[in-house]
Amino acid sequence: MRALIKHHAGPELQFVSDRARPTPGPRDVLIRVRKAGICGTDRHIWEWDDWAAGRIPVGIVTGHEFVGTIEAVGSAVSKYAPGLRVSAEGHITEWKDYNSRTGNAHIASDTRIIGIDRDGCFADFVCVPEENVWPVHVSIPDTIAAVMDPLGNAVHTVMAAGVSAKSVLVTGTGIIGLMAVTVAKAAGAGRIFATDVDPKRRALAKKLGAVEVFDPRESGWIQQVRKACRGEGADVLIEMSGASPALDQGFEALRNGGVAALLGLFKKPALFDWNKHVIFKGCTVLGVNGRKMFETWYQMEELLLSGRLELDEIVTHEFPIEQFKKAHETMISGEGIKVVMTL
Amino acid sequence: MRALIKHHAGPELQFVSDRARPTPGPRDVLIRVRKAGICGTDRHIWEWDDWAAGRIPVGIVTGHEFVGTIEAVGSAVSKYAPGLRVSAEGHITEWKDYNSRTGNAHIASDTRIIGIDRDGCFADFVCVPEENVWPVHVSIPDTIAAVMDPLGNAVHTVMAAGVSAKSVLVTGTGIIGLMAVTVAKAAGAGRIFATDVDPKRRALAKKLGAVEVFDPRESGWIQQVRKACRGEGADVLIEMSGASPALDQGFEALRNGGVAALLGLFKKPALFDWNKHVIFKGCTVLGVNGRKMFETWYQMEELLLSGRLELDEIVTHEFPIEQFKKAHETMISGEGIKVVMTL
Amino acid sequence: MRALIKHHAGPELQFVSDRARPTPGPRDVLIRVRKAGICGTDRHIWEWDDWAAGRIPVGIVTGHEFVGTIEAVGSAVSKYAPGLRVSAEGHITEWKDYNSRTGNAHIASDTRIIGIDRDGCFADFVCVPEENVWPVHVSIPDTIAAVMDPLGNAVHTVMAAGVSAKSVLVTGTGIIGLMAVTVAKAAGAGRIFATDVDPKRRALAKKLGAVEVFDPRESGWIQQVRKACRGEGADVLIEMSGASPALDQGFEALRNGGVAALLGLFKKPALFDWNKHVIFKGCTVLGVNGRKMFETWYQMEELLLSGRLELDEIVTHEFPIEQFKKAHETMISGEGIKVVMTL
Amino acid sequence: MRALIKHHAGPELQFVSDRARPTPGPRDVLIRVRKAGICGTDRHIWEWDDWAAGRIPVGIVTGHEFVGTIEAVGSAVSKYAPGLRVSAEGHITEWKDYNSRTGNAHIASDTRIIGIDRDGCFADFVCVPEENVWPVHVSIPDTIAAVMDPLGNAVHTVMAAGVSAKSVLVTGTGIIGLMAVTVAKAAGAGRIFATDVDPKRRALAKKLGAVEVFDPRESGWIQQVRKACRGEGADVLIEMSGASPALDQGFEALRNGGVAALLGLFKKPALFDWNKHVIFKGCTVLGVNGRKMFETWYQMEELLLSGRLELDEIVTHEFPIEQFKKAHETMISGEGIKVVMTL
Repeated sequence: MRALIKHHAGPELQFVSDRARPTPGPRDVLIRVRKAGICGTDRHIWEWDDWAAGRIPVGIVTGHEFVGTIEAVGSAVSKYAPGLRVSAEGHITEWKDYNSRTGNAHIASDTRIIGIDRDGCFADFVCVPEENVWPVHVSIPDTIAAVMDPLGNAVHTVMAAGVSAKSVLVTGTGIIGLMAVTVAKAAGAGRIFATDVDPKRRALAKKLGAVEVFDPRESGWIQQVRKACRGEGADVLIEMSGASPALDQGFEALRNGGVAALLGLFKKPALFDWNKHVIFKGCTVLGVNGRKMFETWYQMEELLLSGRLELDEIVTHEFPIEQFKKAHETMISGEGIKVVMTL
Repeated sequence: MRALIKHHAGPELQFVSDRARPTPGPRDVLIRVRKAGICGTDRHIWEWDDWAAGRIPVGIVTGHEFVGTIEAVGSAVSKYAPGLRVSAEGHITEWKDYNSRTGNAHIASDTRIIGIDRDGCFADFVCVPEENVWPVHVSIPDTIAAVMDPLGNAVHTVMAAGVSAKSVLVTGTGIIGLMAVTVAKAAGAGRIFATDVDPKRRALAKKLGAVEVFDPRESGWIQQVRKACRGEGADVLIEMSGASPALDQGFEALRNGGVAALLGLFKKPALFDWNKHVIFKGCTVLGVNGRKMFETWYQMEELLLSGRLELDEIVTHEFPIEQFKKAHETMISGEGIKVVMTL
Repeated sequence: MRALIKHHAGPELQFVSDRARPTPGPRDVLIRVRKAGICGTDRHIWEWDDWAAGRIPVGIVTGHEFVGTIEAVGSAVSKYAPGLRVSAEGHITEWKDYNSRTGNAHIASDTRIIGIDRDGCFADFVCVPEENVWPVHVSIPDTIAAVMDPLGNAVHTVMAAGVSAKSVLVTGTGIIGLMAVTVAKAAGAGRIFATDVDPKRRALAKKLGAVEVFDPRESGWIQQVRKACRGEGADVLIEMSGASPALDQGFEALRNGGVAALLGLFKKPALFDWNKHVIFKGCTVLGVNGRKMFETWYQMEELLLSGRLELDEIVTHEFPIEQFKKAHETMISGEGIKVVMTL
Repeated sequence: MRALIKHHAGPELQFVSDRARPTPGPRDVLIRVRKAGICGTDRHIWEWDDWAAGRIPVGIVTGHEFVGTIEAVGSAVSKYAPGLRVSAEGHITEWKDYNSRTGNAHIASDTRIIGIDRDGCFADFVCVPEENVWPVHVSIPDTIAAVMDPLGNAVHTVMAAGVSAKSVLVTGTGIIGLMAVTVAKAAGAGRIFATDVDPKRRALAKKLGAVEVFDPRESGWIQQVRKACRGEGADVLIEMSGASPALDQGFEALRNGGVAALLGLFKKPALFDWNKHVIFKGCTVLGVNGRKMFETWYQMEELLLSGRLELDEIVTHEFPIEQFKKAHETMISGEGIKVVMTL
């Protein structure tokens, strides 16, 4: 089969057309991939930064966002049959620990991720355990179904924070931050404020529903947010930047008793003023990663069915997998936002 | 001052122009009323049904939904000053019991209501304790501010149920049921289904955001809702009809583990199958009345500021208070939905 | 193997010693049963009442509460190995619907129960899917591990209601009601009140931690509960009787805004005053059945490890399975409370 | 009247016997103080550290924990009458902002504290607004009622975290940390682990209900906690030390998805690894201060009425106010834990 593989301990990927098709174990399904999204994580793998060098096994097929069709099922599979259009949750667990047995498998202690710890979806076929399969609703087009993994990150963060009838500040409008803006609006946020250093991203955030957007390097914006929110501050902070100053600013713009949901990863530990930002203010801070398995997927489906998510300007480019180099470069250069490859 | 009073133990109200202006106690504010809405409760008082005969003291000024301006404040009032544009929460408590001291004063055990237990707002002036005052945001027009009481009922019910990214069934689209449809959509509901026996109300519910509307007397609709919701049923039931069959149908259309929020009052105790509807299904049932004091008001303000609430077709008529008879009849006949009187 | 089977469409069970040992499917584990508890449901099956006649397939092995040791595992089983001491959740699902994929498999729409819909644990061996296995902590004795199913019902109800630092009323102190008293105390309830018509059960409820116990047929007790609770009523109602008057009384004893968790099944639909009990009071009603899979099991383990659960006077008798008749009669007569059979 | 005043911008307090009795405003009550506790904050004021020098107005009466009897009420007071035995919440607000109008007045933006920002309770009389009064249940002795403020800190932290049927780690067993141990046990925690550098405090923590206590400077204890908790870690962290290493250790001992409630104040901003401790683990962090007004007080009353709080070894000394020097020194030296002065 065709596949993109991390062929050496260095930058870029290699396209091959003779990778062996994976064989599903007794509880696995084999999925023929139709479309696959390129994640920010795939950029790290492409560029082979320190994180990638320390985590990614050389030789694997990369990629973890996709949609496809079940091609075959293992001998003990009982839930699904070939022919079904599906996406899949890329976090794989043995379902043995506390979190995986209580509806929180996204933070299972034994999680392994497709395209990162084992073969992924930048290939004609990918294998996942049947528990990880997500049947895609007939009304959701392939291009959107291919990016339910990152969209699910945004949905998870927004729904964990709880935005319904609340004022919301989104710090950082990269791919998932932009998704968070449209998700927050669809999920019932009142006024949405957003920050980003990139004017194009700010303009898009406004188009997607933010009432005010700010360059976080300019002064006065925190006071503007607070003033708009009764002089007290926003109800909710959605932190998508992973930048320490953004976190501090976000808490300053948050009202006493506000909720901060953090998805953006920080480059390194940062100085943090717990007294000022969290304890005296009585704030709640939520660490978010992955997607709740599978509450987030149900919420995402319902939001997609509402027709209120605006994703057309977020999923900007599609390329055949043979143009993987152009696809990755379009994403990395910032010319594209979310880039999808077709198989 | 001008006032509408319940002048005798029988139907209708009397308009007088020489009612004494109320004198605020040390902790009260005196408000000059600008606009006041006519509630379903005011219909009971107008028609003098059994409930009204048993509760309403003859001689009081009626009315409890309004907007106005603070005219004067009592000697010990510290929070507000004359000139402020305000609405008010009509539920008055001494703030001494568990609920009123923990953010749930709407279910205080000593609640007395303006326009029902004591003089209300169908008059040039009304007095309320300063704790009951709600300063109205500058961007909210008087006509909307006048109906924050019933709109708050809808917001309270919808927010108690929690509709964000969920499928929702609204049974009964009277005034507050219609408000609940637009509130649910603005608050982030996915697909909204609604039932009502009146085709005009159903059409309006659809216009306000319901994806499907049903005549509950026709067969098959419950299966349609269930089928649309993965064959399992809607996530949330908002019960606004107070009709026992609607309640049963609503639970049949609700999925296992669903949430039902009940605001509609029932004419009398009804047979209910706890095992089938609640225990085996693991459902949650929430009794809702009034507005959370004051969480609901903050949520309502944020939803109004989002610009997504569609109230223009719900608040259908305005009349000067001198035309109170026409105002009440327009509401009672169903020609109007929410009717507002101006002073 | 030895087994108790429902040998005909009528009362009692039959003991056989030549039942074929079940063969585990690829995802099943085969468990050698050591001890098994007799449930109230087993009484219905024994007596062959209408419910049993309509539900139980003649010929099955009954019983669903047990502890044992894994004897063998199916070919695709990955989580457990022979030799492990285990109990099991008796509710079996395909893990395909909303609830089973979001941590609420106890209310899956396709639930089948061992000992009711398929062969159970009153036998030397029982088969369950590996997902249903619960490894038993080394510090929990077999006799207690054998009754984690009904104890889990009590834990589920108490934890759903949320009793920590709250006053609690338990209506009905049958087996699970008594368990609920000790569970509520261990889980942090403040004062616990309990009602039962049986003086022996009341005395035991008091011994287990209730501060006051009442005969619900006597007058004045509701006022006593309300008076003890600031004149407002108890914070929480745990309804274990399935008696309609108990439900009404329970709501009268509950404060405005209180939480009622209902586990007791009602014989038939009952008249209920929604306005008075739920809507005006702003109460929350929770339907409870089974055990959360598997949050309840983790909570139960932690409570057992706390050493604060008092179960010695609830698990009153043990008999070898050959004395199954005496075992069932001891339970049915009320001489015993929870009766366990050994294999 | 007698009073302890901060007589100069330096250490210690001055005892005077001719301080003018405060005059209640129209909405205030005047309380005759019977007993008053010495808080850790009072130590800062006594020692006149940087915080005290920057916050405390010279000349005020200090002290904020007490019990007494209402002596007189202001002209507009409606809730209470002279003669009532009361404690009081020391956080004073105008009840105008979001939090104070939604049940969270403890984080009001305008909070002023008795004994810190205005005259306090180390005196024969103290004035507070009637909203701040807490009538003390007849069964609670004066010595305990005098320390409901710090006990309320512990109750607030424990109840915010939610400990019922959960394993709990308390880092830091100073006065409030010790209270948190007994509160957590009474509120339904499963196993409680505690750390402190002081062996006497550790021994007392064990006596009050901790199953294991650790010196946080010794190695291996985090692994012990994790091992005891299925190898995954404790469910809940109660951070009472305000020490940055304790916070890091606490998060290492916490399981994925765990809840951390932080009350201890940090000397300064500290380096924190958000990715490792919060984001990847999906943890929830709660900032806690003061007492929920007044949910915490109700919870505290119910816990006290349960009879399960063990406070006798925490409230170690009582002195007449004239021996204020010895009282403060007993607390500061660590010879006493909670020290109460009588008037």
